[in-house]
Amino acid sequence: MNAGGNSKTAVFPPVFENSAARGRAVIVCEHASNHIPAPWGDLGLTPDQRHAHIAWDPGALGLARGLAQRLDAVLVHAPVSRLVYDCNRAPDMAGAMPARSEVHDIPGNATITPEDRAARTAAIYVPFHDGLHALLMDRIARGLHPALITIHSFTPVYFGTPRAVEFGIINDADDTLPRAILDAARTRTTLRCELNEPYSARDDVTHTLRLQATPYGLPNAMLEIRNDLIATPDAETQMAATLAPVLAAAMAALTPEPVM
Amino acid sequence: MNAGGNSKTAVFPPVFENSAARGRAVIVCEHASNHIPAPWGDLGLTPDQRHAHIAWDPGALGLARGLAQRLDAVLVHAPVSRLVYDCNRAPDMAGAMPARSEVHDIPGNATITPEDRAARTAAIYVPFHDGLHALLMDRIARGLHPALITIHSFTPVYFGTPRAVEFGIINDADDTLPRAILDAARTRTTLRCELNEPYSARDDVTHTLRLQATPYGLPNAMLEIRNDLIATPDAETQMAATLAPVLAAAMAALTPEPVM
Repeated sequence: MNAGGNSKTAVFPPVFENSAARGRAVIVCEHASNHIPAPWGDLGLTPDQRHAHIAWDPGALGLARGLAQRLDAVLVHAPVSRLVYDCNRAPDMAGAMPARSEVHDIPGNATITPEDRAARTAAIYVPFHDGLHALLMDRIARGLHPALITIHSFTPVYFGTPRAVEFGIINDADDTLPRAILDAARTRTTLRCELNEPYSARDDVTHTLRLQATPYGLPNAMLEIRNDLIATPDAETQMAATLAPVLAAAMAALTPEPVM
Repeated sequence: MNAGGNSKTAVFPPVFENSAARGRAVIVCEHASNHIPAPWGDLGLTPDQRHAHIAWDPGALGLARGLAQRLDAVLVHAPVSRLVYDCNRAPDMAGAMPARSEVHDIPGNATITPEDRAARTAAIYVPFHDGLHALLMDRIARGLHPALITIHSFTPVYFGTPRAVEFGIINDADDTLPRAILDAARTRTTLRCELNEPYSARDDVTHTLRLQATPYGLPNAMLEIRNDLIATPDAETQMAATLAPVLAAAMAALTPEPVM
């Protein structure tokens, strides 16, 4: 993995869609892609592993796009597999460049030198968060009161155990928006919804919220949808149609109201 | 102030000194400069006002340089007056581009359009914090456990009231390093020291700590020195010689210990 330490490694900024959108929500998808750029080869993984949930959140980008369209929201997503760098993890977390994910060893991450860790951080993590930060700061400076919503999917079976929850809503320090989303989802959908399932901030999964929303007091929530419910483009569209009114209702209950 | 909204406005990244330093401390000085770049004219201020504490923290940069040398620390400082943009404030805080500071109106900030707020934010605040963030992330990725210490000075008389405290140590969420600095300062100096004086995080003064250190669990502290004690280059040097062993002792008590 010496290539990762090459100072000529390309930089992988986030992808922005609907940049001119005027809705209050800023939709983020850190695990949108299973792409492993050339400097990191295939990380020693089989094709099946590179398409499994360990490499990305299947369905999350399609759902996020459907939500962004329906909510007139900007969408920011990462172009690189979380197995190269997980943009929802700080550089000193084991999960940032994991040597093992669920039951799979990641050979290309077994031994990463400090220089390689720094190179991946500079190539993927820093540009992702700088790009999102600049977008949020522009909107804050204009008085637009953005709300940060991150979209994830989770595997229905984890370490051999089925998960019953279908829609998890996870909070960092401020649970105002997550609780409003939970209330709206229970009223407006038949999804099995839970707060802070299948995991919570105590599992260190709310890094993006903690870094980008909490210091600014922005309303924020991390959404987790069980990936068997968004396994096809049609299912992604259906779920976006189900959840967009839920998010709209939850945001409408926030103060101050959107000014856009 | 339309020039502030000009998309051709230059960008003002932070200044880095001692970039190759190997000490654990990362020294930051947000209020190092009273420079008002051309796009913002003189903000309608007199020369006296532009050299007063409202425009910068007199003595802070000289002290920070002396500390950085003695602690083998990197130094990051902002090149623009806080009256144009205060890098220790989020873009929606009144103090970011203040219309009034202590007893002084700032005519150039009396009416700032949303476009001008966004332009100043993009030109000064975002590059400053992106630069500091990239530096910290590089050190975190390499396992170097940085400690963030911001250096400020305060005026001995504020709204007509003298301030007795000489050395204030201010904490954000984690007071471990501030308490260690206080203990070391009381043991090793004759300065009148107080925790969270002359103000505290409740006054929204810990933005840089909250943004750059708290989300990563980095040890961090904001230091405030009364500016009459660092009013000449000799006094800055003397204070750096006094405080460097204090900071070194406080950092030596941290876990994990520095690995550099």
